[in-house]
Amino acid sequence: MNHDYMIPLEPENLSKKIVLLVMDGLGGLPMEPGGKTELEIANTPNMDALAEKSTLGLHVPVRNGVIPGSGPAHLSLFGYDPVQYEVGRGVLSALGVDFDLQPSDVAARGNFCSIDENGVITDRRAGRISSEEGLRLCNLLNENINVPGAEIFIAHEKEYRFLFVIRADGLSANIQETDPQVVGKGPLTSIAFDAKSKKTAKIVQEFSRQAKQILSNEFPANMLVLRGIAQLPDWPKLPDVFNLKPIAIAMYPMYRGVAKLVGMESPSVAQSYEEEIDMLEKYWDNYDFFFVHIKKTDSYGEDGAFDKKVQEIEKVDALLPRILALDPSVLIITGDHSTPSLMKSHSWHPVPVLLYSKLCRPDGIASFGEAACRGGGLGVRFPGYELMPLAMAHAGRLEKFGA
Amino acid sequence: MNHDYMIPLEPENLSKKIVLLVMDGLGGLPMEPGGKTELEIANTPNMDALAEKSTLGLHVPVRNGVIPGSGPAHLSLFGYDPVQYEVGRGVLSALGVDFDLQPSDVAARGNFCSIDENGVITDRRAGRISSEEGLRLCNLLNENINVPGAEIFIAHEKEYRFLFVIRADGLSANIQETDPQVVGKGPLTSIAFDAKSKKTAKIVQEFSRQAKQILSNEFPANMLVLRGIAQLPDWPKLPDVFNLKPIAIAMYPMYRGVAKLVGMESPSVAQSYEEEIDMLEKYWDNYDFFFVHIKKTDSYGEDGAFDKKVQEIEKVDALLPRILALDPSVLIITGDHSTPSLMKSHSWHPVPVLLYSKLCRPDGIASFGEAACRGGGLGVRFPGYELMPLAMAHAGRLEKFGA
Repeated sequence: MNHDYMIPLEPENLSKKIVLLVMDGLGGLPMEPGGKTELEIANTPNMDALAEKSTLGLHVPVRNGVIPGSGPAHLSLFGYDPVQYEVGRGVLSALGVDFDLQPSDVAARGNFCSIDENGVITDRRAGRISSEEGLRLCNLLNENINVPGAEIFIAHEKEYRFLFVIRADGLSANIQETDPQVVGKGPLTSIAFDAKSKKTAKIVQEFSRQAKQILSNEFPANMLVLRGIAQLPDWPKLPDVFNLKPIAIAMYPMYRGVAKLVGMESPSVAQSYEEEIDMLEKYWDNYDFFFVHIKKTDSYGEDGAFDKKVQEIEKVDALLPRILALDPSVLIITGDHSTPSLMKSHSWHPVPVLLYSKLCRPDGIASFGEAACRGGGLGVRFPGYELMPLAMAHAGRLEKFGA
Repeated sequence: MNHDYMIPLEPENLSKKIVLLVMDGLGGLPMEPGGKTELEIANTPNMDALAEKSTLGLHVPVRNGVIPGSGPAHLSLFGYDPVQYEVGRGVLSALGVDFDLQPSDVAARGNFCSIDENGVITDRRAGRISSEEGLRLCNLLNENINVPGAEIFIAHEKEYRFLFVIRADGLSANIQETDPQVVGKGPLTSIAFDAKSKKTAKIVQEFSRQAKQILSNEFPANMLVLRGIAQLPDWPKLPDVFNLKPIAIAMYPMYRGVAKLVGMESPSVAQSYEEEIDMLEKYWDNYDFFFVHIKKTDSYGEDGAFDKKVQEIEKVDALLPRILALDPSVLIITGDHSTPSLMKSHSWHPVPVLLYSKLCRPDGIASFGEAACRGGGLGVRFPGYELMPLAMAHAGRLEKFGA
């Protein structure tokens, strides 16, 4: 990784625990000029009281102006520069649907599309077919595809989108995507870009040929294209890089999946925020890094439901005393990116951060919100992937750099 | 470029327009302790009102402590890290005098100098001869230089400085500069550093030999040296990198030239600020990125004319309503670097920025000035070349990074 300057301590410090509490899509915008953001409007007496003893700031998950997807945004929080550590879209799709992707598998993101009688793509999203229709077509493919020497899995994601996985020996993913990413062209041929990817290329070619036949009477979804063809990345893992024993506590597969990519364990799925904190308490003695993921702040942001996003933040605030009762060495409260209700989408705006530790330099600002964080000691627009070394330092888990 | 992580949208967004209004040398310093800067003293009701709805900050054009030249400073504003994308001084000289440099040409910056009877340089600026004298000597050279197989152009810049251009087939610029950059040595011999630069080296050697003869009776300007020997760079262009149709509106060749380097069009020269805004209105429907350059803020800074610099800022403020009436998706007001009247020169001080967009996170600071910008959400000392991706994001012209 890019944190060569960190020297992990000996494994003696299981008692120095770090909690990373991520409210997905936390950052927001006012709904009207002069107004306040979701986090600023929310009544958060516990976070505000903690803020006064904390260092605040605003982090940029990827780069200034870049709108982060969920995968890259979480990698940044885990200490990985997401520009350097790029995950293929196929792998992200597998994480999102909780597919048990193996290191030898090749995964891709599939889209149903429409082609005309000449095989030219006329709609890259097949008229945005319903999820019901998309699922039916995935089942149709699973029942009829037969590529000798390989297992093919099609898992429906949503609407026109699905996960495509090849399981076979001797695969490598360096092949041409079949998605031309524009209309007016036919699907591309999946040629291999190196010798060890030839087998994969042939399998994709055969799959595409069969899929075209199987879907030929299914207009508008009468063809499919693949992109983001990738294998699981072989990256340095958190336990090795930071000498941590990390656990992910989350309600949705995507976030457990990204956490597993970097070596976190995630023994079970939580069904509610309360259950997430139950798990935090349950696993407290057995781990030393706790990633706790709160999903609905993002979902309501995507829906444009400002008030509901506010309420979710308030629910999390109400749970804060239970987390603090565990006496973590470091507690970070932040988001993976901004999802302003105003925009109904992820955005590039920097994300509020609260870093609490007995060893932090407190800003003395008794409020947790975007404007308050602008004045905090972590600074505005610092790279999100610098939070992990900061957490490690505040937990007393780093040695001196140089004599 | 270094913005591989940005995914340009389909070319459907001509209506999402970005205006980059650059007041050259905008950043300043107080003239006495406790005083205010030029921008802070200026009466700018329009900018102050806009600031309240905007995100503010201070950008660093090149690196902390680096005093930017005009070329690198503008490249940074256009999204190019000027350390990575370095332009030869010869090319900058060509841009500055509006010379129509061709891709096959080799350009250099020339200085007249003084040599003694042994050929040793005694004054690197030839006693800072007048511009009149410099022009006369350039004409003398143009009339008498004759290098077979090559066209040589000498274009006077100012005082002892000129542009030197070779036009011939098969040139390459990897040769020794003849300027030793110290007194007490003779001009260096332009040896070639690679095989394809041999022709260029020979031409420069022959040119230097003839120039020494022609200037032999012209003390103090009895010799010349060349530096910054370079060809036009072949960089990715803004239209390709950002999927933009950009136009440069400026009164001086240098700025139109740098803009053209990165693929902007610049169909005509403006004669006044008013005419610049006339052009903005005239071209509004045909472009989507508008670089508008204001020169005199820098000129008066260089002159140490604090009050006049203040007045120029106020003139620009008075034109702001006309720009806002066009309803740009993004309006950035900034400088390319600081030119404090106190210093009468370019400086390394960070440069005030105002970024207005309906999607910005407003700081609510109703003032545009150095101190106000220090509290803004863009942060202090962010890289100037990150303004372009920020502008693209705020204009809704970027896709998500990662799923």
